[in-house]
Order: sequence, then C-alpha cells, then structure tokens
Amino acid sequence: MYCVVALDVGGTTMKGGFVAQDGTVLHFERRVTPRAEGADRVIAAISAFVSELSRPRAGLRPLAVGLAVPGLVTPTHAVFSAAFGWRDVPASAFTEVDLPVALGHDVRSAGEAELAYGGHSSGDVLFLPIGTGIAGAVVLSGSLYGGAGGWAGQIGHIPVHPDGLPCGCGQRGCLAAYASGGALAARCGVPSASEAARRVAEGDERAVRVWDEAVGALAAGLATYTLLLDPAVIVIGGGVSQAGEALLSPLRERLSARLSFRRPPEILASALGAQAGMLGAGLLGWRAASTAG
Amino acid sequence: MYCVVALDVGGTTMKGGFVAQDGTVLHFERRVTPRAEGADRVIAAISAFVSELSRPRAGLRPLAVGLAVPGLVTPTHAVFSAAFGWRDVPASAFTEVDLPVALGHDVRSAGEAELAYGGHSSGDVLFLPIGTGIAGAVVLSGSLYGGAGGWAGQIGHIPVHPDGLPCGCGQRGCLAAYASGGALAARCGVPSASEAARRVAEGDERAVRVWDEAVGALAAGLATYTLLLDPAVIVIGGGVSQAGEALLSPLRERLSARLSFRRPPEILASALGAQAGMLGAGLLGWRAASTAG
Repeated sequence: MYCVVALDVGGTTMKGGFVAQDGTVLHFERRVTPRAEGADRVIAAISAFVSELSRPRAGLRPLAVGLAVPGLVTPTHAVFSAAFGWRDVPASAFTEVDLPVALGHDVRSAGEAELAYGGHSSGDVLFLPIGTGIAGAVVLSGSLYGGAGGWAGQIGHIPVHPDGLPCGCGQRGCLAAYASGGALAARCGVPSASEAARRVAEGDERAVRVWDEAVGALAAGLATYTLLLDPAVIVIGGGVSQAGEALLSPLRERLSARLSFRRPPEILASALGAQAGMLGAGLLGWRAASTAG
Repeated sequence: MYCVVALDVGGTTMKGGFVAQDGTVLHFERRVTPRAEGADRVIAAISAFVSELSRPRAGLRPLAVGLAVPGLVTPTHAVFSAAFGWRDVPASAFTEVDLPVALGHDVRSAGEAELAYGGHSSGDVLFLPIGTGIAGAVVLSGSLYGGAGGWAGQIGHIPVHPDGLPCGCGQRGCLAAYASGGALAARCGVPSASEAARRVAEGDERAVRVWDEAVGALAAGLATYTLLLDPAVIVIGGGVSQAGEALLSPLRERLSARLSFRRPPEILASALGAQAGMLGAGLLGWRAASTAG
C-alpha cells in the first residue's frame, strides 16, 4: 500500500508515522524532542526518526516525507524557530532518505488536517492547538490565512495583560505566558501540563489558581479573536486540550461572560486530537508525492 | 453632471454631499447628529438632510442615495445600532426622495473608499477610524472581511485591559473605553476629543495622562491585530486622527516596543480624512444607481 512518512515536530514530542492518501493513519509513534540539547540535536533526531520510519516494511511503500515544524517556514526552508533556535535550515537537512520532502508550519498543517478530516461545516474557524506553546491556524472563508508576510495566527503572543508576566518571546503579558503547556507546568512547579491538570483535579491550591488564570487569559484572547474575526467555531487541540471539559466548560462560560453584545462562537475539542499535526504533515507529504510524480 | 447623494452618519456629525462616479466630491457639508434626542430624531434628521441635498441644483443630477450608518447593517435594513438605539429600520425610512437607496456599514464603507481612492498598494490593511466610537475595516487579500455573521472588525470592543474600565457596550476594558473620541472627551471632562487634544498640547496634566493611556491601549490593540493578522499597513482615520503626529508618532513607538520578534506594520494617517465615510457612501450610491439602471 502506498503511504507517506509524516512527522509533526512539537516542542515536547515528535509524532510520526504513515498516512494513507485518504488520511488513514497506518502507523503512529511518539518520541521525545531533545529540545534542551539544541538545534543540531533536534535536526539529527528528526533525521533519525524519518530514516527509521522509511525502512522497508511489509505492505507499505512510502512515496514522500511530510515534515511539520514550528516557527517561520517556507516549503523549502525552516526559516526560524524560537523554540528550537534554528535559522534557515534547508528541507534536505532533515532527512537522509531518498524521497521528496515537504516542509510546512506545524499549526497551519494541523489546521489543514482539521479542515480536511475534522468534519467542520463552517469556513470561518480558529484552530488553536495548545501545546508547549500556543499558535493558531486562522481559517477564513475556508482557507488558511497567512497575512502580508506569512506571520498571521500568532495568537499565543497577543498581549492579554498589557503589563503582565514576561514571556519567553521577549514581550509582556502574552497569552502563552499564562495558558501554554509550558507556562502551566512552570507556574505550577511541575514537569508537565498534564501533571498540572492532575493537581488541579486534586484541588491543589497553587495549581487551581494558575489554571484559573490560564482560563481567564484564554477567554480574553478568544473574546478578542471573536470580536475581530467573527468565527463560527473555535477548535481547541494540542496536549493541554486533553484536559477536556475541565478546560472547555469554564472557558465557554468565561468567554460568554466577556461578550455583551454578541453571542460567542462554538468551542469544540479537536476531533483529531494529538494526531492533527501528523495528519497535516501527511497532507504535506502527499502534496510532495503528487508533485514529484 | 450625474452624481449620487452620499451621507455618512457618525455619532457626532453627519457628513453629506454629492460624489461623482470617479470619486470626485462635488459638494460636502456637515450637520450635527442629534444622537441625544433618540433614534426617531436621528432618522428624521437623516431624511431631512437627504431631502435638502436631493433638491434640483444647477448642473447636478443625483441618481441614487448612499447611506453609511454604524452598527449591524444589511443592504436593506439598519438592523441594530447601540449608538443610536435603533433596530430593524428599513432603508426606505431614511429618505422621502424618489431615488434608489443603498445602506452600508459606515466603517466598512470608509474602508472601501480607502481601498478605492487611498492609493494603498497592499491588500492586507486595517482601516481604523477613531471617531466617537472605534470600529475597524478588516481588509484581507484585497477584500473586506465580514466573518461568519457579518460582525468582524469590532476592534473597539476587544479587551485591552481585561479588568479595566467599564465600556458603554456592557463589557470591561474595551479599547474604545480608553481611546475613542467619546472616552477621551469624557475622561478629560471636556465636550470633544479635539478639545482634549488641545489640552494635551497645552500640557494639561489630566489630559496628558488620559491621552497617554489612550495611546497605550491603541498600541496594545494594534499589537494584537498585527500578531493575529499580519497586516502590511494600518490606516488611522476619523476625527481623533486629526491630532496627526501627536497621535501617530507615540503610537508607532509604543507598537514597536510591544513587538519583540516581528517588525510592526506601517502606520499611516488616512489620505481621505473626514471624507472617507462619505466617499464610501458614494460607492454605495453608485452601486444602487447601476443596479437600478
């Protein structure tokens, strides 16, 4: 069976596998992203992961590789990523295998997968994966919107508290400084956002306060998005969304309370869950396969 | 000469006149909007203004009427306006003259005029008229964007200070509660935003503080817009923009200081100034004339 090798490189884990042309996931595995060890080690880890996935396997014939990475990305280069500290890495540096390679932006690719496979009926949607960091895929009238220079969708760095907490990006009061998985873990003094969510469920005082501030920051950010762009649906994904209704119900309530003269859009959990980015990388791979063919 | 009657109904003044098909303003006058006297009086004042403008004049033959009004507007009805307190007013209620009438949204119409006549080369622009209130015309890839339900562009009511000042809309911390002409005047204790600007120029302590907070709120709001939508240009118009560089230079500086990992877009004063809304109403009128013809 023909397939593509698809890899979604997140700040914490890499999700990789095989995707068939109809979006069926034929294989899925995770590895830790060695982010703390620097850009070269991350690139080497990606290359090793792709090589292993590309080995001959019974019944599967990979045609191309799709790679979804964060930061500023063109089809040929990973131009810049604050998370990984790389600059102008050519697509070829990420693999040693003899297959066409397509690069794409992780969050936008995940958004394309949600559009293709998520069963959404409206064309005005914000896809908001909340992982180690936060970015959004802005879908307007059915298409991903990139802006004048390809930088649209940086909702993780909008100032929700203008004089608020410092953010790793160098700004102050960014949404991500309150509501990203990285911020939730750091502010709760635990190693991961899922551990922070567990403490919230146990009623840990510090975790409850941090979680409440995160939901408040998200409500303010989504109120802003709603007032500017009037989406029909906001789809929350990424690792932090695995908290499910513990996140979504208070978020719906507080978004609604923030809006006085208009109704809030629907807030849904991603139907694709943790595989959205890899399915998006699969779309990139299939595009490369069809171009090469 | 053929022309259309064009009327831009603002919260403080109505700007009306004649516009030729190429956008030449053949006549321009202002009247006070009797907003404090209620919706019926505003509608009657609009109708009287249109009737007087439509009287036969030497050399001018009006073909249609274009009306730009705030709030939620369809081509046939002024559905809702918080500023005027009206609901579901049919276009026919605004005039007694025997000419086709077209209704449009004031800020979006002004944005269309800026696109048509403002000489902007990029298609990714925010037009931000700051008048009695604040709304934005969101231009993406060369077209005005309305969102899922026609409510996009409500940048005046995004929460720039989540727990900030109460706004007339019922929300808290809205951009308009700090930076609209109405808020500037009220917070300085003077009758108009231009009087507030005059006091700032004189060094009045209260006015300087209020102005500074307004610029700070605008910088936060524009940082948010920039990060979400990556515009090439932001064009500031409306009455408050008549302060010119006293507004724009500190705004550029503070927007730039808010953004750490990307450059700010260009911030320009509207080339059309106070006539942008009326020119937009003219475009509406010419559309009605061509449909009727």
